[in-house]
Amino acid sequence: MSSLRYAIIGSGGIGGFYGGFLAKSGKQVDFLFHSDYEQVIQHGLKVDSVLGNFHLPAVSAFRSAKDMPPCDIVLVCLKTTHNHLLKTLLPPLLKPDTLVILIQNGLGLEEDLIKDFPSLHLAGGLGFICSQKSGPGHVSHLDYGKLTLAAYNPPAEAIIEQVAADMKQAGLEIEVAPDLESARWKKLVWNIPFNGSTVVLDATTRQLMENPATCQLMSDMMMEVMAGANACGIKYPIEESFIHEMLEMTKQMTPYSPSMKLDYDHHRPMEIEYIYTRPLQKALQAGVNMRRIGMLEKQLRFKAIYL
Amino acid sequence: MSSLRYAIIGSGGIGGFYGGFLAKSGKQVDFLFHSDYEQVIQHGLKVDSVLGNFHLPAVSAFRSAKDMPPCDIVLVCLKTTHNHLLKTLLPPLLKPDTLVILIQNGLGLEEDLIKDFPSLHLAGGLGFICSQKSGPGHVSHLDYGKLTLAAYNPPAEAIIEQVAADMKQAGLEIEVAPDLESARWKKLVWNIPFNGSTVVLDATTRQLMENPATCQLMSDMMMEVMAGANACGIKYPIEESFIHEMLEMTKQMTPYSPSMKLDYDHHRPMEIEYIYTRPLQKALQAGVNMRRIGMLEKQLRFKAIYL
Repeated sequence: MSSLRYAIIGSGGIGGFYGGFLAKSGKQVDFLFHSDYEQVIQHGLKVDSVLGNFHLPAVSAFRSAKDMPPCDIVLVCLKTTHNHLLKTLLPPLLKPDTLVILIQNGLGLEEDLIKDFPSLHLAGGLGFICSQKSGPGHVSHLDYGKLTLAAYNPPAEAIIEQVAADMKQAGLEIEVAPDLESARWKKLVWNIPFNGSTVVLDATTRQLMENPATCQLMSDMMMEVMAGANACGIKYPIEESFIHEMLEMTKQMTPYSPSMKLDYDHHRPMEIEYIYTRPLQKALQAGVNMRRIGMLEKQLRFKAIYL
Repeated sequence: MSSLRYAIIGSGGIGGFYGGFLAKSGKQVDFLFHSDYEQVIQHGLKVDSVLGNFHLPAVSAFRSAKDMPPCDIVLVCLKTTHNHLLKTLLPPLLKPDTLVILIQNGLGLEEDLIKDFPSLHLAGGLGFICSQKSGPGHVSHLDYGKLTLAAYNPPAEAIIEQVAADMKQAGLEIEVAPDLESARWKKLVWNIPFNGSTVVLDATTRQLMENPATCQLMSDMMMEVMAGANACGIKYPIEESFIHEMLEMTKQMTPYSPSMKLDYDHHRPMEIEYIYTRPLQKALQAGVNMRRIGMLEKQLRFKAIYL
């Protein structure tokens, strides 16, 4: 097994964290930076993590994908609102068997990308993590960290195990899931209610759980997502016990602003399309109208115009 | 036909307007004032109205219902959040055949009141009006004004026609509706979506109509209220054409903050119970789960704790 070369597209709170851990463990990792490029070239990448702080003084940093070498694994850690850029960002990085992993939330991401790159080896990743950029070249990892990986097409299956092994060696918690669509829906059970509701109600997860009305609403919305997911015929249907677990976990969590709330508060575009609109469409095609989720989506589209 | 004596309970934007018009036309009207009492005793009641401004220098004003004389008609123009006060406010005003008219929005108001006053002659009223208190003893009537009256029980039927005649004579637009429950539901078709959504999204009616997502949501919610109302078996079912009319009317309206939005902005309690909770319960009992309305109610209950 030869050593894999990684590229990180979108070196923010997520990309900086996973790429940083891989680089720290001795893997070859090329990072694409945007506004942070100068800072990283001069001072390296700093990761403050609950798993232990570290500093990478010399990072293989690039400010343009065109200058990056081809690699074996591309970790796409962009916000999905920037996925239209992949059409130009990816080609310089691709060899015939390069695996692209979309570490992003939502549904339909791989379907969209494969239209532009029909023979791409493709996988998805879901980060269960609280991590954000706290400054230029500076990542703050606050809690959790588990990454779930799953192949989107058969050529991705073998190499994804090697990626998982690299990441475990780097000290990360990794799970390889047997079905990507099931894993994506499962994460949406939490993301859909809480991302949007914290924006619309200007609230933390804790506040939503402490109020009996919104606590019930979060549960109602989770049930709707479960019904939508299961109607779509996912390979590993979501069970009601999972919803109870998620609600209990959220009650225990420190008050938390999900990524969409942070985006809204910082006047950045929200990931409405892949987190709300696509799941709504898929569920509707399968015969389930997720009415509350549809309402939340419309409320978010209203909030979005005042960003 | 002898002349009716009126009492106004809740002399704010609505009570001051309707009572003011009756008094101006020469009817005997006793007003219960709370914080405005001193101002009105000294300077009278001022009404700025699109129908013509006027000033009543000498008003029959009271600061306690206990001091008020019995009357023929009580117009209750309180916020429904104060209806628990009626148990003590009404008795001094009541003769055996006094008619009480609840000029308030929502469902279940008369059912609750009749429990405390089983033999009460009772009616409901719905003000289609933009009117608010702009200062002590000062009412600003900005638009519309039609009052719909309907009997709640048979003893109210005859006398309500006399009230309507008095009000017409006073220059007001009055309709006597044949069924109170139908009229209350019909008004909720507009009130339910717009009252709550302007609060939750911090928006005017215009902003909600101009955004395609929320314009659709308002329509979806109106359809839900229609389904709930019609399932309850109201005598005059709501038709879809009415929803299109309401949406068109709202598009044409000047940007407007409904009463619930004004209450929220001024840190006053919101009328969630009678405008949301009761209609939800009635529809559910009739087999219709108004899911979006239930979601809006829960969002409002969340907003209410931060008033």
